Amino acid sequence: MSRSIMGAAAQLGPIARSDPRKEVVARLISLLREAHGRGAELVVFPELALTTFFPRWYLEDPAEIDAFFETEMPGPETLPLFEEAKRLGVGFYIGYAELASESGARQRFNTSILVDRAGRIVGKYRKVHLPGYDAPQPGRTSQHLEKYYFQPGDFGFPVWRTMGAVMGMCICNDRRWPETYRVMALQGTEIILVGYNTPDDHTGDFDFDSLTGFHNQLSLQAGAYQNSTWVIATAKAGLEEGSRLIGNSMIVAPSGQVVAMATSTHDEVVVARCDLDLGTLYRKTIFDLARHREPRHYGLIVERKGPVSPPEEG
Amino acid sequence: MSRSIMGAAAQLGPIARSDPRKEVVARLISLLREAHGRGAELVVFPELALTTFFPRWYLEDPAEIDAFFETEMPGPETLPLFEEAKRLGVGFYIGYAELASESGARQRFNTSILVDRAGRIVGKYRKVHLPGYDAPQPGRTSQHLEKYYFQPGDFGFPVWRTMGAVMGMCICNDRRWPETYRVMALQGTEIILVGYNTPDDHTGDFDFDSLTGFHNQLSLQAGAYQNSTWVIATAKAGLEEGSRLIGNSMIVAPSGQVVAMATSTHDEVVVARCDLDLGTLYRKTIFDLARHREPRHYGLIVERKGPVSPPEEG
Repeated sequence: MSRSIMGAAAQLGPIARSDPRKEVVARLISLLREAHGRGAELVVFPELALTTFFPRWYLEDPAEIDAFFETEMPGPETLPLFEEAKRLGVGFYIGYAELASESGARQRFNTSILVDRAGRIVGKYRKVHLPGYDAPQPGRTSQHLEKYYFQPGDFGFPVWRTMGAVMGMCICNDRRWPETYRVMALQGTEIILVGYNTPDDHTGDFDFDSLTGFHNQLSLQAGAYQNSTWVIATAKAGLEEGSRLIGNSMIVAPSGQVVAMATSTHDEVVVARCDLDLGTLYRKTIFDLARHREPRHYGLIVERKGPVSPPEEG
Repeated sequence: MSRSIMGAAAQLGPIARSDPRKEVVARLISLLREAHGRGAELVVFPELALTTFFPRWYLEDPAEIDAFFETEMPGPETLPLFEEAKRLGVGFYIGYAELASESGARQRFNTSILVDRAGRIVGKYRKVHLPGYDAPQPGRTSQHLEKYYFQPGDFGFPVWRTMGAVMGMCICNDRRWPETYRVMALQGTEIILVGYNTPDDHTGDFDFDSLTGFHNQLSLQAGAYQNSTWVIATAKAGLEEGSRLIGNSMIVAPSGQVVAMATSTHDEVVVARCDLDLGTLYRKTIFDLARHREPRHYGLIVERKGPVSPPEEG
């Protein structure tokens, strides 16, 4: 029996700082309905999908910062999205800024949740690989302060069996790190869901920055292929508060082939049938991990955080 | 001061089973001279570059098997290559089947060596990720018996500082495994050298096999980009004893861009200047491993060989 799931990447165009949550949620619901109308059973929204990408600014006022964070999910403003998804019988992934108060301490995470077709939150992930800096960098028009606003995720990379598949989540920069996909592959993941906000000015060096779209696609294709998994990757895109965010939301097969891609930097839905058995041939041959991996030679991956080079010559 | 090295991929067309070593070495020398004439300081030859790709056959006669293996390097037949390389002042990588007799036991490895510009062997690598099977598979025209002929490499993934750069080696199937590149990146590698023999009939499923060239390139580009390293990758190519080996020998920059590619499946040299500082911007920003990696969440990569999936639902 063929197992498959209709997946959708529901890309968002820009969100202005002044856009109220309610309006954003209305856009999400509109995308959800469009995806459902095209047969989608699982919809992937972007990272930090409820607000503008605020880590581009250095803010100090706690109240101002708090305004970008959710203290409950769903909350009053996001509940309509949950209700509509449940009514339509569509599962979804969405990213948001989480203000947690576990064990009494206030903690901030860049978080995503997985909601099943009955409207239940079945999984939560907190972004592990925070890019950028923990303090403003001089000379940059647009900052990248995720290490200032968030703590690294403390859940690792769990996977969930839900909606007939084994699913994992990651967020934005996580997708560039091969460890992300591999840890999920070692738990049998069949679909990886990822949202992102990716400005095209990472370094200010045009030789590098002009490759932003290529690097996004390369990372997603390699992660899918090397781990025999589907990847559904969704951007917040377009010119947002002066920052240019790439689009290119895409669905990638376990073959590494891009089977659907957004062509705009606006609100846009792309849909593809994800045959969960497509990865099986890969998992049984060239990527039969249990037959071919040699973990005794991988020790440095966990023993070292950064590189140690051999001594200089002579 | 800019640091760079002129690198070459010296692709070989097919080698018939009946081709004597001497003729093959003459072809290697011819490629070496061409590369040198185009400015190359470092030449990468393929995997198992001295013979036909014998793991496609199931052989049982030890003498017949031994004929594909080297017991010394250089030996009488390969010495002219070493002498010419030394005379020209060109370093090189070459793969061969190694019959070792360390500590009294005969052991077989799929091996590569790194020879510096003074003709000294400065590094040896033994292939870690052996693809295929340890016994013939019924119904296949062409077998893939590397696990029958070779033991997995016992050196891990060392790197060497030589010829003005930090260099690592891997062989063929190793290039599909993100662990390969990462272990070398954690030792500061700046150039990874890889030879391969890649038939286009891995599975017999055309949907998969027709992607062989794409998968080769995807793996090399991702490995280079995600580890801020140059990759020089060289094929043995063409129709060899009824098996079709892909070409596409290439040089990939730390940006993931392919900067040189062979266009034939015959003996062919491609050359590119490898600016060792090109990776620096990557290593200082998005892939500053020491700032961004989170090894505490990577444990499964070394703890598990194969996947363990969550229990079935309900």
